[in-house]
Formats: sequence, C-alpha cells, structure tokens
Amino acid sequence: MRVALLSGGVGGARFARGLQAVLDPGGLTVIGNVGDDVEVLGLYVSPDLDSILYTLAELNDEERGWGRAGETWQALAAAAAWGGEDWFRLGDLDLGLHLVRTQGLRAGEPLSSVTARLAKAAGLATRILPATNDPLRTRVVTPAGTFGFQEWFVARRHQDEVDDVIFAGAGDATPAPAVLAALAEADAVVIAPSNPYVSIAPILAVEDIRLAIVGRAVPCVGVSPLVGGRAVKGPADRMLSRMAGGTTPRHLTDCYKGLIDALVIDHADAPAEADVPLIVTSTLMTDADAAATLARTVLESVS
Amino acid sequence: MRVALLSGGVGGARFARGLQAVLDPGGLTVIGNVGDDVEVLGLYVSPDLDSILYTLAELNDEERGWGRAGETWQALAAAAAWGGEDWFRLGDLDLGLHLVRTQGLRAGEPLSSVTARLAKAAGLATRILPATNDPLRTRVVTPAGTFGFQEWFVARRHQDEVDDVIFAGAGDATPAPAVLAALAEADAVVIAPSNPYVSIAPILAVEDIRLAIVGRAVPCVGVSPLVGGRAVKGPADRMLSRMAGGTTPRHLTDCYKGLIDALVIDHADAPAEADVPLIVTSTLMTDADAAATLARTVLESVS
Repeated sequence: MRVALLSGGVGGARFARGLQAVLDPGGLTVIGNVGDDVEVLGLYVSPDLDSILYTLAELNDEERGWGRAGETWQALAAAAAWGGEDWFRLGDLDLGLHLVRTQGLRAGEPLSSVTARLAKAAGLATRILPATNDPLRTRVVTPAGTFGFQEWFVARRHQDEVDDVIFAGAGDATPAPAVLAALAEADAVVIAPSNPYVSIAPILAVEDIRLAIVGRAVPCVGVSPLVGGRAVKGPADRMLSRMAGGTTPRHLTDCYKGLIDALVIDHADAPAEADVPLIVTSTLMTDADAAATLARTVLESVS
Repeated sequence: MRVALLSGGVGGARFARGLQAVLDPGGLTVIGNVGDDVEVLGLYVSPDLDSILYTLAELNDEERGWGRAGETWQALAAAAAWGGEDWFRLGDLDLGLHLVRTQGLRAGEPLSSVTARLAKAAGLATRILPATNDPLRTRVVTPAGTFGFQEWFVARRHQDEVDDVIFAGAGDATPAPAVLAALAEADAVVIAPSNPYVSIAPILAVEDIRLAIVGRAVPCVGVSPLVGGRAVKGPADRMLSRMAGGTTPRHLTDCYKGLIDALVIDHADAPAEADVPLIVTSTLMTDADAAATLARTVLESVS
C-alpha cells in the first residue's frame, strides 16, 4: 500500500513515523510544508522538513519535542558573541544539516534534490518531498501587524492572535518534482495531525497540489490535531477559535472541504457531527507505538 | 608608538599578542594574510585573520596551536554524516564566527568591515586589517600539480614539495581601506615570524602594500620564523631549502630584499651574516611572556 502524507512539523512527523512503521519500506511519501522555511545566519532552514527527517531517522529529541537528541549550542552562542542573530535556536548538530543543504541550494540544486539526498544519507526508504521548490512563505496577519511565520512563531512566541494567513509566492509556486506523481500513485492520501492553517494550508496553497487532491481517485483522510478541542502542541486551537469560530471536529472538516472523505478524531472530541464520517480513536501519540497504532487505524479506514 | 605588523596565522598571531601586550592600547595594527582564505561548507573562512583575532582576544587553544579553546566538533560530524565535506576542520565555536562573517559578506559588507566588527565584538583595541578585500588566493606549484593553498596544506598535509607560489588575483588586488594609512602612520613596520612564502608574500603581493614598504620613512624589521634553521611550525624550512637553497638568516633576508632594515634571529641561528643587521635574541614564544619579551626586543631595535 502506498500512502501520500501531507505534513507539517513535529506532530505530523510523529504520525509519519507511525505510518512508516506500519507500511512496507518505501510505501510512504511525505509531502512537507515549506511555508515556515527561513534564512537564519545566512543558512536555509526548513523546520518542517527537518522535523520529518529527524523523526523518521530517529534522530529527534523526544523530550524537547523538536530538533536533534544530544544537541549542543556552541556555534549559536559564539555567533551571538560576535554580534550574530540568535533568536532562532540552531543547535550544532542541526547546523551540520543546514550547512550541507545551504551549500547545495547555493550551488543551484533544488530543495527537493537536497532533501532526497539527506533522506538517503539517513538511510530512509520513505520519500520526503517539499511541497514546492519555489519560494512560498507563510505570513501571519495579526492585530499587531503582518509577520513572517518564524518572526511570529519564534521571535514573538506566537502570542499575537491571528486574523489571516497569507502564502507569499503561492501563486507562482508549482509542485516539486514527484509530488503530483506521488499523489497520483498513492492508494490513499492522508492529512497529518498538523495545524490546518500554517502547516497544511501552505501545502494546499500550491494550486496543482490542491487540484490533485480535489480530483483524487483514492480516499483522503485527515487526522485531527486536537484532543478535547485543544491543540496537543502549538496555536492550532487558538487559530481555529478565532478564524473558524470553534474547535469542534466540524470546524476542522470545514478547513478541508472537498478534500477529505473522513476525519480521525480523538475520543475526547466525540460524539460530534460533520459533513464527512468521523473515525473515533486515541490520537495522542505518546510514543512510537501509539503513533503506529494511530497510523494503523487511519490505514484501516481507507482500506 | 604605533606599529604596523604584517602577519600570517599562528606564529604571527602569537607575536602580535606580544606586541599588543607591550604597546599602548590601539598602538598595534595587524595587516593579515588572506591568501589562505577558503570556502568550506559554503562558509567564508579566513584562517590567518581568525588566528590573529582568537589569539589577541585570548580565545585561542594554546595546546592545539590553532582554533578556539573549549572547541567541540558536533556540527562538522553532522555535516559529514549528511554527505558534507569535512576535510577542513571547523569547530562549533569557530563556526559561529564563520556564520557571522559569511552572512556579512553575502550582504555585501567588505571583509575589512566584517573583520573590524569582529575585533570590536571581542573588545580589542588592536586593529586587524585584511591585506585586501579583493579575492587574492595563494596557489602552490608542486611536482604533483598546482593546488589551492588549503588543498595543499590541509587536504594533502603539505607533503608535496613546493616549487613556486602563485597569488591568483594579486594583480587586481588593492589594499583594504586603512592599510596604507596604517603603514604611513606607523612609527615602525614589523614583519612577523611567519612563513615568508605563504604568509607574508601574499600580503606583499598587493603591489601598493609592497611599494608603501619599499618607500617607507620608518624602520622595518623582520622576525625570523626559524630556530636553528628549522621552522617552529609548518613547512617554512622545507620551502626555504628548496626554493632559496637554505635556511640561514641570509636566505630569509633575501626573501625581504629592500623591505627590511634588520632581521631578528634566534641564538641558535647565530653567528650569521646578511645584508642587513641581525639582532640575536630568543625567538621561541613558549608563552605570552616570551612573546612580550620578544616584542620588546623588536621594538627596541627600531626605537
């Protein structure tokens, strides 16, 4: 069985690891969000692709929830002492990846090619594809002004309420190579338990990706990032409350109108009603086993 | 008293620290070699300027002889695991500097300006100037072929004998801002105990710097990098033997014809004769005190 997964960072990455564990090797293709990508200290950082890579390769720090296990912070401290920016936390191990990727990109290699190279170096059979190689950047409209995603999320600690989300460059963005083929060849499309506004929407903002899913011949199922109406991590619940008017399953399915055939929700959000069937299970991925169990439930729903 | 010092990396940097210790704050301007500069993992690395900066700021690793004290190597190991180059040893602390410098250069800031910013961040009163902001690169002609300096020095462990040294770009290189003024305003010019072929010659390859020293109105004294005809560190002795025919003080003064009024040599190389007066002292800079004592002797010779 082949699955194409649309995913943001940490939560999506954990779910991807669950899918990777239950599918045959090579059965999973992850299409990752690049709207969060940011240049820091002259390096091209792709936080969601990196969370996916690190988690699938089991290099991630489970406790901190992001970045690599065994991370140290010497380079960033030194850079700060020399007057460099240190608002975005780049660890030493993490820097190794950013250096290699940035060197490739500056030499003219597309992001998808660099990403494939990194996944191969990690020994992964799973494919990781950026949604697009084009510069698509998420910008957040708040009462305090409009900010680049990371400026809002990291520098301003996502404290500003969000009125709208803009995807700069989306109009000119085309899917990265292999993205449309992966969607066409998949036996199922899955939307990971990621933030619908700033993790999944930037992927769907690439028109040809959205159209491919709208016109899909196979089931597409979403997994809710909410448990009891609250985001497991991050501001998804606050954003849904303000922009959609609530955090019930229906508020979430409204984000994916015409795109999903079912939504997997947690027991804590049931009973509920929506325009598509709701599949109730435990969605909290407390460990790799829980993620695999959730993945199995999701796959059963589309088999 | 104001001194302009021409310097390469480690040995020159130690001597610069000695001068800094005995001169009034701000009395020293170091004009550093940039012929060794190299791009590694997409970062602009300037090994000699960095050795000077680290040593003057007392951040250097005395035991290893290069780089920073307390250095770690996580980023480089990670980069290598992702398929990145690791032939050139870049530590995590060191990377912090390279990131800040590379970001400045890519934004269009000249090397001299970035270097001044770094020296200021380290709290130095001593000025550090690159010989030139232009791309001047040392290339080494050997029986095995012609190599970029770091390829020969680091990757090939400077095992190839050297028949000639070329300074690519020197013909178009002009002195960095403040270099000619520093030479004009100095009460003395000093050539550090650095390799004459690959540390000092690339500085003198900038025609206007050479002409300024040729036409100097103040004394210029050189300090020998040899003790008993052997280089304290590096291949200076092998290069002198092969290209100049020997390692006596005269072989060294021949490298600086018309440029120095005296050469400071070690007891182990005396007695000797040359076309300029030889000042005999202990040149081995075993610690900061020894470097300061040597600096004092050099300054007395030009007072």
